[in-house]
Amino acid sequence: MKHIVILGATGSIGTNTLDIINRFPDRFQVLGLTAKSSDDKLEKIIRCVKPAVVALSDPKAAAALKRRIASLNVEVLSGEEGVKQVACLPEAELVISAIVGAAGLLPTLSAIKSGKTVALANKEPMVMAGEIIQREAKKRAVPILPIDSEHSAIFQVLNGERHGDIKRIVLTASGGPLLKLSKAMKQKVTKKEALAHPNWKMGPKISIDSATLMNKGLEIIEAKWLFDLPPGKIDVLIHPQSIIHSMVEFIDRSVIAQMGLPDMRVPISYVLNYPERTALPLPSLDLAALGTLSFEAPDFERFPLLTVAYEVLKEGLTLPSVLNAANEVAVSAFLEERICFGDIERVVRQTVDAHLPQKAETIEDVMAADAWARTEGAQVVQQIGSC
Amino acid sequence: MKHIVILGATGSIGTNTLDIINRFPDRFQVLGLTAKSSDDKLEKIIRCVKPAVVALSDPKAAAALKRRIASLNVEVLSGEEGVKQVACLPEAELVISAIVGAAGLLPTLSAIKSGKTVALANKEPMVMAGEIIQREAKKRAVPILPIDSEHSAIFQVLNGERHGDIKRIVLTASGGPLLKLSKAMKQKVTKKEALAHPNWKMGPKISIDSATLMNKGLEIIEAKWLFDLPPGKIDVLIHPQSIIHSMVEFIDRSVIAQMGLPDMRVPISYVLNYPERTALPLPSLDLAALGTLSFEAPDFERFPLLTVAYEVLKEGLTLPSVLNAANEVAVSAFLEERICFGDIERVVRQTVDAHLPQKAETIEDVMAADAWARTEGAQVVQQIGSC
Repeated sequence: MKHIVILGATGSIGTNTLDIINRFPDRFQVLGLTAKSSDDKLEKIIRCVKPAVVALSDPKAAAALKRRIASLNVEVLSGEEGVKQVACLPEAELVISAIVGAAGLLPTLSAIKSGKTVALANKEPMVMAGEIIQREAKKRAVPILPIDSEHSAIFQVLNGERHGDIKRIVLTASGGPLLKLSKAMKQKVTKKEALAHPNWKMGPKISIDSATLMNKGLEIIEAKWLFDLPPGKIDVLIHPQSIIHSMVEFIDRSVIAQMGLPDMRVPISYVLNYPERTALPLPSLDLAALGTLSFEAPDFERFPLLTVAYEVLKEGLTLPSVLNAANEVAVSAFLEERICFGDIERVVRQTVDAHLPQKAETIEDVMAADAWARTEGAQVVQQIGSC
Repeated sequence: MKHIVILGATGSIGTNTLDIINRFPDRFQVLGLTAKSSDDKLEKIIRCVKPAVVALSDPKAAAALKRRIASLNVEVLSGEEGVKQVACLPEAELVISAIVGAAGLLPTLSAIKSGKTVALANKEPMVMAGEIIQREAKKRAVPILPIDSEHSAIFQVLNGERHGDIKRIVLTASGGPLLKLSKAMKQKVTKKEALAHPNWKMGPKISIDSATLMNKGLEIIEAKWLFDLPPGKIDVLIHPQSIIHSMVEFIDRSVIAQMGLPDMRVPISYVLNYPERTALPLPSLDLAALGTLSFEAPDFERFPLLTVAYEVLKEGLTLPSVLNAANEVAVSAFLEERICFGDIERVVRQTVDAHLPQKAETIEDVMAADAWARTEGAQVVQQIGSC
């Protein structure tokens, strides 16, 4: 029986993780879970999986939840400290890090510091503090298993291969719902259009990031730290069908790709069962039925956030934290309809350009850059004014 | 320094193997090589790589070669016994089995029995005597490394994976130059049309086998023995561009594929350097430049030899030997313009149907079935008469 903690149990990854865990009740047990706030969905999850501990980052929500599930034998913790405590539960063997955004950084780091194997669906910890996280993980020989479909693909392909034999990795990108959008039309994109991802059902933040290709920008930075690769060995390829999840080219020109129908339960099952695989009752990939797979080079002009991400990847320091925070601010503003779609790239570019990069050796360095970028980004949003 | 023996040094695989070996003179040394007959090409190879021993299966050719290279310090052996001796040279570590057709069986088996690691480009040994070969290899813990691009793909993908996690393997097939040919036009196909493979430059026998899909038929039987899989776990998929060389679907629906530009030097380099990889100065696969990859299910009606091969794969016994020998007879007859293209499948089908399957437990069983099929096949060819 593997004891699991889920950080961010009510999001898309959390829900898919629970789906897999519930199929194998003799193999996995949810020891603890966390969420942002209390609602019917969370209560239903708790009544179903019966965790020992739950933490809500919002103290008021925690108090409300305590009342709602008073009849159950479940400990309810609250606030950032409560979330961290769940991330470090002594009996936990695997922590699924699935909190959306920068909020996942500190609990993930706590899990690593307490020696847990961490399965990472949350990109931001690696983007913001990749060097710190890998340093702490290596100290304790803690494995970090990627859940993101692209990084899971690379991870699966590298199984049994030597790191020195990698020539480059190629992260595929669907290109999102606005792949063919002209520059002129960018300002007119509605929230609904930007959220309509062609292949994957995901949360709103990552859906918008897919439409701007910032998601791929964050992924190239994540890949640098996950796979210990220089920027020159990390490429992006547009592949609208999202069937090839990513690939590795080796020094002998052999290319190995991981493929499958877009279903997050596959990479989630992979980390839950790692290093083994488990049969899943999902449909097989039928390439003959699909007919064709297509590929094109990314258009850096139409998707300038990918250009910014490569610049930030190369320069490093506090820039990745700033990139991430500025993007979170911009995406929130767009989702709240305070700025237009095309303004997201302006907010990010202006915030990154205004930043004087600093060393990112401690979590305090990283958090300071994050805070600075949120203030700066908010100011840029205000300057732009309403859409 | 790895000491290499090449069985079949003047064919397409032999030539590509020498190309790789010559690029890494500090890593590989050709200890011995064999060929069918002596010619200028062979003499040039011998003068370049300076092997210790050479064997020609044709004794007259061996005598002629002896005179031609009298000034060199190269031992020249002759006949089947000479070829076997080279396959078992005590100092050899790796034997490249690249003789075309059934003639490769006995020398390959000799190499395995003398404990050499064998890299197999020659399909026929596994098709005819897979059970015997694997029994002998397992007795001595001799690794058998596939060179065929499809089997190399599967082998590379399975690196680091558990055999029990395989759901199925999918061998890709370009479909050859006659993929879209109607049944009615089959009898009118010229030798030139049948030999014109769209992606790979290969010898005439394998090029014709690609045009009839018999090559894929032999490969599914080879795969059964190489990867210890039942017929139900071996699928074929038409993929005209020959970029995905083959793939494995795992029980969790993850599919891993090996890809690359069609160049046999990649799988050859893989077996020479196994378990490492070596940088090759070849172009990278550029999927964006290719644009699309396409796939379709094989048409068993238009390519009936694939149907015959699956029947033979399921029933086993001496049938694979009969299938292979009948096909060799039919392809020879077509290349000599004694029968039409469409007659190849008739010769194979009629010979297989006329065979009473026997146990294939010894090499004698296998060779008897092979001999029977050659006589029977030749009779069918004669019955058909001239094209």
